[in-house]
Amino acid sequence: MYQLIIVGAGPAGLTAGLYAQRFKLDFIIISQNIGGTALEAHVVDNYPGFKSISGPDLMKEFASQIDPKKIIQADIKQINKKSGGFAVATYQNKNFQGQAVILAMGKRIRKLGIANESNYIGKGVSYCTACDAPFAQDKIAAVVGGGDSALSAAVKLADIAKKVYLIHRRDEFRGAPAWVEKVKKNKKIVICYSAQVTEVKGNDFLDEIILNTGQAIATNWLFIEIGGRPALDLCQDLNLKTEEDHLVVDKHQATNVAGVFAAGDITNNIFKQIVTACGQGAEAANAVYSYLKK
Amino acid sequence: MYQLIIVGAGPAGLTAGLYAQRFKLDFIIISQNIGGTALEAHVVDNYPGFKSISGPDLMKEFASQIDPKKIIQADIKQINKKSGGFAVATYQNKNFQGQAVILAMGKRIRKLGIANESNYIGKGVSYCTACDAPFAQDKIAAVVGGGDSALSAAVKLADIAKKVYLIHRRDEFRGAPAWVEKVKKNKKIVICYSAQVTEVKGNDFLDEIILNTGQAIATNWLFIEIGGRPALDLCQDLNLKTEEDHLVVDKHQATNVAGVFAAGDITNNIFKQIVTACGQGAEAANAVYSYLKK
Repeated sequence: MYQLIIVGAGPAGLTAGLYAQRFKLDFIIISQNIGGTALEAHVVDNYPGFKSISGPDLMKEFASQIDPKKIIQADIKQINKKSGGFAVATYQNKNFQGQAVILAMGKRIRKLGIANESNYIGKGVSYCTACDAPFAQDKIAAVVGGGDSALSAAVKLADIAKKVYLIHRRDEFRGAPAWVEKVKKNKKIVICYSAQVTEVKGNDFLDEIILNTGQAIATNWLFIEIGGRPALDLCQDLNLKTEEDHLVVDKHQATNVAGVFAAGDITNNIFKQIVTACGQGAEAANAVYSYLKK
Repeated sequence: MYQLIIVGAGPAGLTAGLYAQRFKLDFIIISQNIGGTALEAHVVDNYPGFKSISGPDLMKEFASQIDPKKIIQADIKQINKKSGGFAVATYQNKNFQGQAVILAMGKRIRKLGIANESNYIGKGVSYCTACDAPFAQDKIAAVVGGGDSALSAAVKLADIAKKVYLIHRRDEFRGAPAWVEKVKKNKKIVICYSAQVTEVKGNDFLDEIILNTGQAIATNWLFIEIGGRPALDLCQDLNLKTEEDHLVVDKHQATNVAGVFAAGDITNNIFKQIVTACGQGAEAANAVYSYLKK
């Protein structure tokens, strides 16, 4: 039995690991990937210490500070209570046990939920602009969303695409003003306010999208950047308190269940940034250290 | 009148500034120095993104992300309420006004408070190991304290000094286990538990320290690493709620006074690290943004 299992290896999980290592805890990090949602950030220019770095590069730096033997790549199946602690089961049929857990799984990608959407994944529909943007080189792209991810995706795509439609269901963006300004100034970006994509059309590849306004837009690549939802089904047996689908944590990142802590996008903390997730990860590791000492 | 005045330019203040800039707020940062307590860190190896960097170098990176015109170096005299906001007066006889403030002044250095202590400052007594350690090259050094600062100072000094005494008033260290282990393993470090320095002696330069146990130790340099206390006298007119000499803040870094936010070492947050201060600075800027929008 480990002293601590950290589930997830985004900014929150990796920082928790960095501190767990510093505290000399017997711990592991289990995660599908190393970097989490930050892997989707083309440019990070709001993390103190780096004027501009790609998300994947920043996450490589984070991971390099942790003993690689402590990071296990696997897909989480379920997290359960167990006498004396918690059990984490993976789809790779391995089971891990820990006295305490830090849940840092972030969010699952959200889809539009329209007909044919899944048929075009990789053929014109993408949920990761940072990964798939190069496909839109000299093509017509469209982005759905109104937050920082969508706004930054549109700006980024405008560098390489012929034209970028930014489709937002509201009449005002909720992203940071700096991004809103960049979007509005960019002549390659056409903003479609109060609009939703209702259909994706094409043959083998995407050709066209239809908006609820009736408008048909010739599009080669549709980037869906509408956030996501924490994968709370993985820990439903723990009876954790939630608020709008996020885990409720106190100032020290403790949930309502003793021994269960959470950090980053999975929590009900409002301001979801790399640096805030890091602060919460460090705080969670410290809280686990105090918890185990008792 | 600015929208926001950030007082202090350590990790918390600089991160708040980075986000205020991102939010396009009309803000300034007023601080005695750029870097705060982090300037005293010889090696930072627990900030995600940097395996090892000096505190001053890391703070240079932080500051480089902010428009230099936004940072004003000055000594704060007083922070008062004013109609429509707050007034910040400096000893340079300048006055600044802001609709909101983020207090991020960190802590003031703490002295031992024994006779002659001040007479030997720079002549054998130091409150900043990171700054003054080179003076202890091939000499006998002593460190007072039991937290991370004291432990890391002792380890660092052991690299260059002939011998290092680590004097702690308790019989157990409160620093991180990793540092405790390094100290205990280091053959150049002599630990004096349950001891306090009661006298500093010498001629022009320090020669000897006396402990409350009666022991006299030949010492050339005494490094005092016993933490500090927030400079709350600067904002006493604001009637801010405190807890053990630190400002009480909620999850969003708001104090009990509308428009006054706080981040970093000045707050009652327990885990005082660069990365947690950064997270709080970002959170505070976001809270100010919401406050001003209302």
